[in-house]
Order: sequence, then C-alpha cells, then structure tokens
Amino acid sequence: MTTGFFGDVQPVRFEGADSTNPLAYRFYNKDEVVAGKRMEDHLRFAVAYWHSFAWPGGDPFGGQTFERPWFTDDMAGARLKADVAFEMFTALDVPFYCFHDADVRPEGQSFTESARRLDEIVDIFARKQEETGVQLLWGTANLFSHRRYMAGAATNPDPDVFAYAAATVKHCIDVTKKLGGANYVLWGGREGYETLLNTDLKRERQQAGRFLSMAVDYAKKIGFTGTILIEPKPQEPTKHQYDYDVATVYGFLKEFGLENEVKVNIEQGHAILAGHSFEHELALAAALGIFGSIDMNRNDYQSGWDTDQFPNNVPEMALAYYEILKAGGFTTGGTNFDAKLRRQSLDAEDLLVAHIGGMDACARGLKAAARMLEDGVLSGFVEERYSRWNSAEGQAILSGQRTLEDVARRVIKDAVDPQPRSGKQEWLENVVNRYV
Amino acid sequence: MTTGFFGDVQPVRFEGADSTNPLAYRFYNKDEVVAGKRMEDHLRFAVAYWHSFAWPGGDPFGGQTFERPWFTDDMAGARLKADVAFEMFTALDVPFYCFHDADVRPEGQSFTESARRLDEIVDIFARKQEETGVQLLWGTANLFSHRRYMAGAATNPDPDVFAYAAATVKHCIDVTKKLGGANYVLWGGREGYETLLNTDLKRERQQAGRFLSMAVDYAKKIGFTGTILIEPKPQEPTKHQYDYDVATVYGFLKEFGLENEVKVNIEQGHAILAGHSFEHELALAAALGIFGSIDMNRNDYQSGWDTDQFPNNVPEMALAYYEILKAGGFTTGGTNFDAKLRRQSLDAEDLLVAHIGGMDACARGLKAAARMLEDGVLSGFVEERYSRWNSAEGQAILSGQRTLEDVARRVIKDAVDPQPRSGKQEWLENVVNRYV
Amino acid sequence: MTTGFFGDVQPVRFEGADSTNPLAYRFYNKDEVVAGKRMEDHLRFAVAYWHSFAWPGGDPFGGQTFERPWFTDDMAGARLKADVAFEMFTALDVPFYCFHDADVRPEGQSFTESARRLDEIVDIFARKQEETGVQLLWGTANLFSHRRYMAGAATNPDPDVFAYAAATVKHCIDVTKKLGGANYVLWGGREGYETLLNTDLKRERQQAGRFLSMAVDYAKKIGFTGTILIEPKPQEPTKHQYDYDVATVYGFLKEFGLENEVKVNIEQGHAILAGHSFEHELALAAALGIFGSIDMNRNDYQSGWDTDQFPNNVPEMALAYYEILKAGGFTTGGTNFDAKLRRQSLDAEDLLVAHIGGMDACARGLKAAARMLEDGVLSGFVEERYSRWNSAEGQAILSGQRTLEDVARRVIKDAVDPQPRSGKQEWLENVVNRYV
Amino acid sequence: MTTGFFGDVQPVRFEGADSTNPLAYRFYNKDEVVAGKRMEDHLRFAVAYWHSFAWPGGDPFGGQTFERPWFTDDMAGARLKADVAFEMFTALDVPFYCFHDADVRPEGQSFTESARRLDEIVDIFARKQEETGVQLLWGTANLFSHRRYMAGAATNPDPDVFAYAAATVKHCIDVTKKLGGANYVLWGGREGYETLLNTDLKRERQQAGRFLSMAVDYAKKIGFTGTILIEPKPQEPTKHQYDYDVATVYGFLKEFGLENEVKVNIEQGHAILAGHSFEHELALAAALGIFGSIDMNRNDYQSGWDTDQFPNNVPEMALAYYEILKAGGFTTGGTNFDAKLRRQSLDAEDLLVAHIGGMDACARGLKAAARMLEDGVLSGFVEERYSRWNSAEGQAILSGQRTLEDVARRVIKDAVDPQPRSGKQEWLENVVNRYV
Ligand SMILES: [Co+2]
Ligand SMILES: [Co+2]
Ligand SMILES: [Co+2]
Ligand SMILES: [Co+2]
Ligand SMILES: [Co+2]
Ligand SMILES: [Co+2]
Ligand SMILES: [Co+2]
Ligand SMILES: [Co+2]
Repeated sequence: MTTGFFGDVQPVRFEGADSTNPLAYRFYNKDEVVAGKRMEDHLRFAVAYWHSFAWPGGDPFGGQTFERPWFTDDMAGARLKADVAFEMFTALDVPFYCFHDADVRPEGQSFTESARRLDEIVDIFARKQEETGVQLLWGTANLFSHRRYMAGAATNPDPDVFAYAAATVKHCIDVTKKLGGANYVLWGGREGYETLLNTDLKRERQQAGRFLSMAVDYAKKIGFTGTILIEPKPQEPTKHQYDYDVATVYGFLKEFGLENEVKVNIEQGHAILAGHSFEHELALAAALGIFGSIDMNRNDYQSGWDTDQFPNNVPEMALAYYEILKAGGFTTGGTNFDAKLRRQSLDAEDLLVAHIGGMDACARGLKAAARMLEDGVLSGFVEERYSRWNSAEGQAILSGQRTLEDVARRVIKDAVDPQPRSGKQEWLENVVNRYV
Repeated sequence: MTTGFFGDVQPVRFEGADSTNPLAYRFYNKDEVVAGKRMEDHLRFAVAYWHSFAWPGGDPFGGQTFERPWFTDDMAGARLKADVAFEMFTALDVPFYCFHDADVRPEGQSFTESARRLDEIVDIFARKQEETGVQLLWGTANLFSHRRYMAGAATNPDPDVFAYAAATVKHCIDVTKKLGGANYVLWGGREGYETLLNTDLKRERQQAGRFLSMAVDYAKKIGFTGTILIEPKPQEPTKHQYDYDVATVYGFLKEFGLENEVKVNIEQGHAILAGHSFEHELALAAALGIFGSIDMNRNDYQSGWDTDQFPNNVPEMALAYYEILKAGGFTTGGTNFDAKLRRQSLDAEDLLVAHIGGMDACARGLKAAARMLEDGVLSGFVEERYSRWNSAEGQAILSGQRTLEDVARRVIKDAVDPQPRSGKQEWLENVVNRYV
Repeated sequence: MTTGFFGDVQPVRFEGADSTNPLAYRFYNKDEVVAGKRMEDHLRFAVAYWHSFAWPGGDPFGGQTFERPWFTDDMAGARLKADVAFEMFTALDVPFYCFHDADVRPEGQSFTESARRLDEIVDIFARKQEETGVQLLWGTANLFSHRRYMAGAATNPDPDVFAYAAATVKHCIDVTKKLGGANYVLWGGREGYETLLNTDLKRERQQAGRFLSMAVDYAKKIGFTGTILIEPKPQEPTKHQYDYDVATVYGFLKEFGLENEVKVNIEQGHAILAGHSFEHELALAAALGIFGSIDMNRNDYQSGWDTDQFPNNVPEMALAYYEILKAGGFTTGGTNFDAKLRRQSLDAEDLLVAHIGGMDACARGLKAAARMLEDGVLSGFVEERYSRWNSAEGQAILSGQRTLEDVARRVIKDAVDPQPRSGKQEWLENVVNRYV
Repeated sequence: MTTGFFGDVQPVRFEGADSTNPLAYRFYNKDEVVAGKRMEDHLRFAVAYWHSFAWPGGDPFGGQTFERPWFTDDMAGARLKADVAFEMFTALDVPFYCFHDADVRPEGQSFTESARRLDEIVDIFARKQEETGVQLLWGTANLFSHRRYMAGAATNPDPDVFAYAAATVKHCIDVTKKLGGANYVLWGGREGYETLLNTDLKRERQQAGRFLSMAVDYAKKIGFTGTILIEPKPQEPTKHQYDYDVATVYGFLKEFGLENEVKVNIEQGHAILAGHSFEHELALAAALGIFGSIDMNRNDYQSGWDTDQFPNNVPEMALAYYEILKAGGFTTGGTNFDAKLRRQSLDAEDLLVAHIGGMDACARGLKAAARMLEDGVLSGFVEERYSRWNSAEGQAILSGQRTLEDVARRVIKDAVDPQPRSGKQEWLENVVNRYV
C-alpha cells in the first residue's frame, strides 16, 4: 500500500534514447557496464531529503508554494514524509539517499526531545532500508537553520552553541553509523561571518578546527568506517564561509593535521560561486588527495546565489566525470542531487521528472567521460606535452637534486632559449565534442 | 640637473587638510607620530616602477597612449627612465620603490645579455639609492610577459622554461640583496592554466612547490635577510592562477612545508577578484601568521578584471589598516602602489597627483585605524562577545580536554539551550564612522 | 502611552559630530540649511515598513530570528505593529514612511477580506499621520510574496492573476491617495522569468505595458497627484526581471508611450546587481528625464544577492547626492531606507541605531555633495573639457546641420588630426576627497 | 599558387560525425537541408579578420605570441595578410568574412593616407571576392584602438574626434557598399566613460545619437541596402559602455527615433558580461523587432572580461539557434566568429581547427533547434500555458478595453482566486535534452 502521493507511479525504467516517456530513463541503465563497472556502481546516485521533502518552496521574496500533506510540523507528518520519500527512492530505483536531522523530524522543545524524535524516524528508515535495499550515502546535521545558530555553530561566540552543535553532530554520527551510512558530511552554512567588525576570525578558526577534530575522533572511536566529508561553499548565507573552496579546506585540514582524515564533498553550484569551474574543484581535490563525493546540482551562471538546480548540461558534466574517473571514481562517495525543484514546479510528478532528467544527464556525462578516458586522445596529448620533464635533468630538478644556482649555471652555459609550443586548446575542445 | 620631465617640480610637502594645492599632501605628514610611530615608518610607501614608468597605456582594445621620451627600447631609454623614476621618488619623498627586471632594462638577445643589462641599471640604482636615501621595498622577476612564459614559468610543461625562470629569479634575488631590498616578491601571473584539457594540475603544483623551495633555499644560502612574499591573485591573465587567494597560498605553503619561510603580499584588487574584501585577506593572513606586505591599489567594483587604480575610499582603507595595525603593523613589508594611471591621464603631473592622492588617502586611513584601535570600542565589543569562551569549560573544550561525548553528555544533562544575542553590526558600522 | 517596545526611548536629537551617544545624530540636523534648503527637505527620509516591522529575519538557509510581540498574524498584531512603527518614526523624527499592503495587515481569506483589513489599518495610519506629522512617501502593493504570484503578477500566464494584481494595485493607489502619499511605486519582483523555456517574453512585456498603462490612467482619473515610480532590479527572486535597470525601464516606457508619466525609484543595491554604480543609474535617469526617488540601501560588493544593508560609505554616498543635486534634488521623491537589519541584530535598539547611522551617513554625503557643487571645481573641469563643442562647428553638428559627408570633407580638407588631452581622473578623485 | 602559410591545406570537407580528422567537418554539411533551407543559408558563417589575422596574441600581462610573416606594419604585409585570409576563407568554405579598416591596412600618417591604403586593400578584396565567391557579411570601422579615440569617438569631448570618426565611418560605409556587404556594424568600444567625474553623460548620449543618425542618413543616401547594426557590450575597455545590452540599445534607438533603422548584432560573450544569457538577448531583440545578426563566440563563465573564445557547448548553442529560428532566422545577418585563438595556440593549423570546431558546434546546435521547433513540444507547452489569455476577457484587457476599475470590480464580484499551476521547468529542460 502506498501513500498515493505519486498516484499509481510505476518504477522508472530504462527505455533507451528514443523514449519520450517523461517517466523513463533514456540513458541511465543501471546494469549497463561502463568502463568495467555497472552504471549504478559508478554513479552511486542519491536523493537529498531536504530539498525534495522538507523545503516548502520559499525564497527571500516569497513564501511556501508547495502543498504537501506532510507539512504539518508533527511526527505524523514526519512519518508520512518518510513513506513518500522511500516511495520515491524506490520508484526512481536510486541506490542512496542523504538527510539532515532537521529534514526528517520536527524540532522538539529540547535537545533530548529532538533527539528522541530523530531516533524514532531513524528506526523507520532502518526498516525501510531493509525492505527496499535503498542505502544511506551520507548523514549530516543541520547546524544553520535554527536561530541558535545564527552566529555560527562550532564558530559561535557562545561555547554553549558549540556544545549544542557538538551534541547534535555526535547524535547524527551515531545515527549515520546505525543506518550504515557510507559517509558523514559537514557543511558549515553559518561557519563564517557577516562582518569582521564583530568577529575574531582566528579564534573562530580554532574553534572550527577543534570541532572537526572532536568529530573525527568520535567517529573513529565508535568504529564509523565511512568517510568524513566537508562541503566547501564560499558564502551564502554568510558573507564569508570558512570552507570557501577546495583549496581553502585543504589549508584548513593541514593546519589542524586532518588532511588524512577528512575529504571533500564538492558541489557544482558552490564551485561556481567561488569563481571556479566544477572540474577545477574536482581536479584539485584529486591532486590533493582529498576527493570524496559530489553534489551534482548546478547553479545558474547568471545568478549570484546558490540556485541548486538539477543538472542538465551534458558536455559540462562529461568534464566533471572525466576528472572523477581519472581520480579512480568514487569509493565511499557518490552523486548526490542537492537540487531543489524550481518553486513553480508544484506537481508530485515534477519531483520524479527532475531526478530522471538529472540522472540521465549524469549517465550521458559518465559514458562520454569513460570513452574520453578509454580513447586516451586527451591524456595522450597531456602526457606528451610534459614529456620533457621525464628527462634526467627534469627528474633531477623535481626530485630536489638541483639548486637554483645549478639550474642558473646551466641556462647560462647552454644559452638555454626555450621556444613555446602550441597549447592546442581549440583542438582539445573539438576532441571533447567527439564524445558528448 | 634634472631631466625636466616633471618641469620644475618642487618636493611635495605637507600643507594640511585645507590645502587645495594638487601637489601638496593634505594628510601625509611623514614625521607626524601616529600610534607611537612616524607615519613614514608605519606606511612605508613604495612606488611601482612598472606601471609608472614602463606601461605604455595599452589595454586589450587599444595601444599606447602615453608618450614618454624613454620609450625607446634601448639602454639610453632605460637610463633616462631611471633618472625620471628617482626624480619622482624624490619629489614625492617616498621611502621605497619596487621593480621587476623587465621594467628597468630592455630584453636582450640572450639570458646573459638581459642579465648584463640589468646589472648595469642596478649599479645606477645603487648609486641613486645612496644619493637620495630611497630604498628598495622589494624586487621581483617578470615571468609572464615574454612569450616563452605563455604557458607558465615554474609550471611550464617545458623544463627549460622552468630553468630559464629559475635563472632569472636567482639573478633577481641577487640584485635585490645587492640593493638592500627588504623583501622579494613572487607573483605567478602565468602560474595557472587556460584549460584543464591540456594541463596536469598536480604536476604543475609540484613544479611550483619545487621552484619556491629552491628560491627559498637560495635566498637563505646567500644570506638574504628580507622576506620572501607570494602575491595571490585568482585569475587574469590565466583562467585560474594557483595562488588564488591567501587561504589557497597557505594550503600551498603547508603542502610544501614553507609556511614559516614565505609570507604574502596582498593586493586589494586581487582580493576583490577572488570574492573577498581586502580586510578579509589581511585578517586571514594575520591569523595564519603569513601577513607580509600590501599592494594598496583598488579594483573597480563593477569591472571583472584588475583595474589597478590608485586607492581613494578612506573608510575602506581605514578597515584595511585597522587589520594591519591589529597584526602589529609592517615589519619588512610596506604599502606599495601597484597602481597605474588611467590610460587617459597623459600628463607628467598626473603621475605625481595620483600618488599624492593615494598617499593622502592611506594616511587618513591609517590615522582613523589608529584611533579605532586606541579607543578600543570595537575590540572591546569583540572581546566581550567571545568572553564566555574564557570560562573553564570553554577553555577545556579549546585545549582538547573534552571529547564529543563529554560535551554531548553535558548538553543533555544540563538541558543546554543557548539563546542568541545581537551581533550589533549596524552599531559597529556606526562606530567606525566616528573615525573616518 | 507607548507600547514599550523601545523602552523609554527619547526622541533622537542632533548632538554634533563628537557625540558618541548611539541614539543621537552626529550629522543629521534637520533644520540646518544646506545649499539653500533645510536638510529635512533635501533628504526627505523614509522608513520602510516591511524590513523593519514585517520581516522575521529569515534567509534561504534559516528561519525567524527576530521575536516581535506583533508576529501573531492577526489584526491585533497588525495594530500593535502600527503603534510600534509610528513610535519609531517619531523617535527618529523622520518625515516619511513607505509600505506595501501585505506589510501592514494579515492576508485575508479573499481579496475582499484582505482589502477590508488594509482599510482598517489605513484608517489607523491616517490618524497617526495626523497626530505625528509623519507622512507617506510612497505606497505600493506586494505582488510577489503570495504563491498566486509565483509566475508573475501582470506578466502571469493566467489573466486572473493579472486581474487580482490589478485590483490590488487599484486599492493600493486608492489608499496611497487617501494617505496623501507623494508617490506610488511598482517593483516587479516576479515580473520576469525563471526560464525562457516556459515563457513568452514578448507577450509578457505586452501584459506589463498594459498593466502599467491602466495604473497610470487610473491614478490620473482619481486625481492622484503623486509620481508613479518603477523600481528597477535586474534579478532576484527571478532569474531575469523585466525592469532590469534604468536604461531598460526607459526603453520599456518609450515602447508604451509612458516616458512622461512614470519615473524611477533607484536602489543602490539593485544598481550594483545590474553591474552599475549607483551614481551611474542616478545620472542616467536624470539625463533621460525620469529620475524620481531613491532607496538608499547598499549591497555588499562581495555578495551576489540583494543584501539591503543600511548605507555607511560616505564617499560613495556623496557621489550619489552629487548626482541628485545636479538633477535639481528631489521633488516628490525622497531617501527611503529599503534596508533590513542583519538577522543577528536582534535588539529593538538595533532598529533605531541602524536608521540613525544611515541618516547620518546620508547627511554627511549630502553636505559633501553640496560643497562639491558650490565650489564648482568638478563641474568647471567638465564644462571646460567639452567646451570645444560650443564652437560654431560643434553646434552645427549637434543641431543636425552637418551630414556625414560635410564632416568627412572637412576632415580631409583641413587634415584634421585631433590630439588627446589628459582626462585627469586621479586629480578629480583627489578633489572629491577634499569634500568627504 | 598559395602563400604556403597553411602548408598544402586541402578544402575542409564534411566527413560525418564519426570522422576524427581534425580538418574535416563532422556536422556542418553546407548543402544539407535543415528546416527547409541549406545549412549554409541558415548559418551564414563569417570569419572575423581582426582576431584571426591582425591580433598578435597579447593580453594585459604579455605581448605578442603569434609569429606571422605579415606582421610587418607595411602594405606588403597587408597584401600578404589578405592572401592568407582568403586562403583560409576558401579552405574553410565559409560564405562570409567581416573586417574593420584598421585590420586590413597599416595606419597612415594622415586620414587621407589611411583611406588610400584602405582603398588599395579593398580593391584586392573585391577581386578576391569575385574569384572565390566569398562575400562580406559586414564592414565596420575601428574607432577604439588609436589613442585619438581614448576618450571616445562620437562621444569624445573634442568635436574633432567626432569628425575624424565620422569621416572614417563614411569611408567604411562606402567601402562596405562597394564590396556588397550585407550589413554595417557599429561597436562603440570607447563610447562610454571611465569615470562620471569627467563626463557629461547626457551630452555624450546626444553626440552618439547624432552620430548614428548621420550614419543612417548617409547609408540611405548612397543606397546602401544592408542593415545597420549596433553591437551591445556592457563594459570593457570602458568602465561603462552606452550600448550596454539589447534593452539599453532599444531605449537609445527609441530616444533618437532610430528603432526602425538600426538593429543589433548580439555577441554571446557580451550577453554574459551584461548578466544575461545569450538566448535572453536574442529573444528580447526579436520581441523588440531589432534582431539582426550574431557574434557566436563565448565567454568563459569564470572570467570577468571578454574572452572571445570559439563556441563549443552545443546545448547552449541549440537554445540560441532556437530563438533565432523562432524569430524567422537571419535575413541580412549571419553567424560571425568574433573569436580569437587562445594566445598559446600558435600554429597555423589552430586557426583552421578552431573555426571547424565552432562551425560544427553551430551546425549541431542548429539541427537540434530545428527539431525542437518542428516537434513543437516546447512551443506547444508555452502556447497552452498562456491560453487563458485567448479568452474574451483576456483579449479585452490586452486590447485596452478594460480599466483598472473594471478589472477590480470583476475580481471582487467573482471572488477571483487564481490557483497557480506548475511551470514544469525540469520537464522542459529534459525535453531539450532529447534534441541535443
Ligand atoms: Co548549494
Ligand atoms: Co550541497
Ligand atoms: Co593587480
Ligand atoms: Co600587485
Ligand atoms: Co533591494
Ligand atoms: Co528597493
Ligand atoms: Co567580445
Ligand atoms: Co563581437
């Protein structure tokens, strides 16, 4: 028996590229093998609970647009929401979902009551996971919506807020472990500042470092084997967020000796807001050894805020999956849609259609990326371009056997006069267009 | 005997706030003591050789607008340029200047010839420094204008370009030491990429790390006692520059173990391009222990490229110097104007007028900052705001004596329910307006 | 008897620049004469009802932070809100306020009920205006918050939404007239689109043109003598708003023959979002003859959304008032603060402090602008710069007496070879710094 | 006999989607009929002379990278350049090219000498057009590179600069007519300002209006039957350009009564810089009746300046051609590549490869757009969405038969309470992905 929210929805099936059925996959064929792995295992899709089931459709200039029977702010609503959520996971045949504590249960009058409510829902989730085979990609704690967090959670000027947040994270890690979550994510939505005038930036960084260390230690202690992930974002809601981008997070992890303990969950929209391409953030994280997982939702290029839209531009997505495949693909990570319907997309069906479109675009991107990698035209060019570094002298420099003086002496002696070679960017872009 | 370029220019003198003499200081009074130090010693002004004497006024859509008698591309021109430059330093009574090798001598047919030409000019500089008392704030190498660097210097796919750059930096460090330079700066204008498609990002970072380590080692070896500085910039000319911003540089330094060897030279315009306020970059560098020096030239907020304009907004500059004073002020660093005249500012006098305006604005900013710091209203508020962290429990958390479980237990036991307090941003902004 | 919301607040008085009383004016001295007019008559300050009294402090990532006794969503709350609002207007001694229908009354079950509720509050306002002397700068209708407007008001695909919006505007114009409002404003927050894929852009422009014509006709018919104003904004909440900026609104007015009927209300924050400086939008509106009024609230330069902050940067504000004074100053328009407290500014006092700071900054800006104008250094330079156009030939060209061939013939005959002259931007910026 | 610059280049031929030949078309098949027209006639490709043959590869931080035998600054070089250019046009089999006067001849010592040189090259062009069948899509004048134009051409404070520019435009219109050019373009690269402080914005707009009117009158007088086009751009090189975007140009044309005489040439990169999507600018121009031609070169979304890159993102291009096809396709306009090689793309072959990739991407975009239009799924949805406006009441409102009061009366009487319907954005985006 279903809730009926989606009508008599049938499981969404792969029908091939020619299908015009809005409720079918045209490219996502979970058992199809791409680059040696089933597509499902490559992509590891997850639905985000918050946007799809908890967000009422408001924006800074308008209120609720969605009318959902579970918007009741009580536990009955929370249970109904869980039912609908798993109906959707099943209908879409996605292997994973993600959630914050605050998405799934109404806030209680106290920490204890909130925790109890969460536990109740988690028991339901555990049972539903068992029944459906859907798994938890990552759990997380909402440390930004409640007014107690308005000035930060770990970085709050009030240590009691730090404590409240710490207790919340402890509980959420417990719950994530209980549900077999593959990762635990921290997005520091309020870990930043509105104005430096009231902020002790150095102190707040110390607090954030301490908080993260405590969380890492706790996860280890209880035997949580998933990955701890930080999700960078430059700003919004704060003027400046400490986890600005991948490079910033890396420096932060190094400062606190956590670079081997924590990885990053990279969102396309946040990359854009920080002035980077998505593939840049992916390539950088891979180079730094901290690539973890992705939020595959795009930002509108003309909007200066986080629009969290479902992805649809296949050529761009191919470049993203190309970096992911080069990095070896996901281990514990996956492809989460931290994407919300446009607030005018009122229908239940829109939820399905949006995910289907996003998943299909990912599948196309992945397949293109796999062929790019297999053909080796791009990587071959890059290898050749740097090949002179494979010379004895190149290796001697890189391995630290040459001083500045050594090198300078050679330049003078040999009258070194390097001649530039074409970077072939246009040709490389044309090559990419063979695959997408 | 002067070159006559500036006519019969007289030394620019302080005449007080009411002066309308375009060639007088209204606020910069070098011997006036502010916060216990002479203004000259606080601000440590430097003129940038490149923009003022080497830039012909071109932009991407137009060519030369300035007509300077020394634009002859020969050594005679270079010598005349040096004469005019020191005339301007003297007229402005600035204590410092900065230069790249390529600013001061025409490129030779070979490395050796270029180096010999530089040496000739450096001898002239040494004599002029002696005569005028003007000193070198920092030297640097231009590793971005020549076509050999089009694909990077240290990060070039060709190790011979790395070598050429290394030899150049060695020579520029030698020269900087010889001239008693207080710092040596690296701005990696081409150390980035145009497209990831032809780039091995990880490899290039390794090359950059090696290069910097070699430079640091060499500077130590020859007893250069100045500070090595990296100047962050997010992009332009490249699509992405590896030294994106202060946080990125910090991560880079940590990766290569150089965080105690290298500091940053922060430019307002580059902060803006990276999505930060100038004061953010300053505060962050101070918090990370890598604050070194500044380029006090602004970007137009509505332009997406580096406009390198002379600064003029005193309230903004006061916030910048406030962060600098909180960090203890400059040690080897100073206030460089990496600023160029607008290309329509054709007159010799414009060069003087632009620097005078910038220096006056800095002086006002500094004086306001000093009073903000002395009055302590702002810092008192901040201290009070975080004061609960001074409690025993707060300190226990910060010092690592509490686990996540400890804290969570207390939250539950004590039913911790933190109440937010006003952040008072508007009041703080009003307080700032008392000083500017 | 007061509500007690502000404690025993005393009227805010002018105490002079040295005052450190957070509840005193340091520069705004309403009876002081500046450029021949009392400051109050120049600046014509207005408080915006919505941000100060109706906004709960939410943002896209968090809910209510403010706790106000009138947040009850009933008419008792609405009446209490009105009491507090007029207490604040009186305490601040501002001459004006502005409001939307939705700010002042809870939404009813029907249009009729909503209208009746508005009428009840308007009667209260009328009485309070009488008692306090505070006047209405402008009224407006909220055609963007309710879900019925999610796809636009006038530009909605459903003509019934157009009708509902039209009825609302009719009522709001009635009410504005009744309260003696000096202007009526239309901000088309949803008059735009989220995606062109579901939008008939041409059709929607026609609908918007019709709507505006109907409003103009109605205002005339009932003898409303105030000014009809459009407030441009490029985007947010929509991806694209039809009233993008001043130039766009001008083209729109010309298209529908309304350029003599409607003017613009220019907001600093919206200018920034559209890629312009505030002074640009002001100067352009003046040049086009459509300058009306201003919303003097700033955007954070590093944020890509509308932060609606109280203004504080005096040099920038001086440039804005300089354009306003050059345009002859306000007639029906004024200086509205479409500014909201930061959501962490929880205290009642913060409301006062924020407005005081904003008003003081405006007063300083105005005084600087007046001196800039009186001294005439800037305008004298500009006049001289274009003076060659005053020649007979210049005038002949401008007045249409020369064809392209005439001019070309002269260029060849006289071997015209124009020589550029310095634009003196740096000197002009220094001159501005004499006044701010 | 060829110049040999491209080696023994063969004409580029269509080889089909599976070709990996870098010098073949995979999608552009000029005689293939799409939506009732040959692809060549639809797309009307043009090569831009300036970027491909006149630009040396410099950027604000570096000089020339390209080494071309014709970079000699004399007439021999100009003739060689013309030979190479037509060799490339022929090799690519493009039907059109575009040029500025300054691209094709070295500047002379006087207007007369420059004009004579241009005439000499134009005679060569005329002969080559005859021989090759390549035609001129548009001519234009470079009124921005020379220092005489540093403060504007038509909008210069010096009427002699206006005159010089007018004489230049006259000559360029003559030349365009002589070569049978289908359009004449004005891009006002310096028609804007650097600072309002030295600018009389109103005056400059008047000058620009006069200039355009004179050019239009002249073109008519001599019987030039092509279209006069303005190319909007928001900024760069100036801080603000008067032809900011399509909406701004429309207002400008209306102000001077030129909206039926002049159309727009829309560039993707300029749309982006102005905060718009390309398809927005196209749709708006079509709605306003001023759509003319396109510059199909993209901007990097993460760069704040005009990168003028060859296009490659097919889904985006499909949306652009969809708007163009909806507007009826090109009449005199076409698809110009105002695109430059990346400055590292040194090889002659890169010029061919870049254009081939761009043309293929356009061809794919066009074919997708044609199918989108033919299938009618998208347009059908839009029509249905607005269908209620086809009711008698909807039409009565739109045609001006209803007053605000009429409508308000009906809302009250009928208790109108409109219910929102889903905007289906995600589904529409999925539909687009069926075609690209
Ligand atoms: Co996001
Ligand atoms: Co996310
Ligand atoms: Co710069
Ligand atoms: Co700099
Ligand atoms: Co606003
Ligand atoms: Co506003
Ligand atoms: Co362009
Ligand atoms: Co163009």
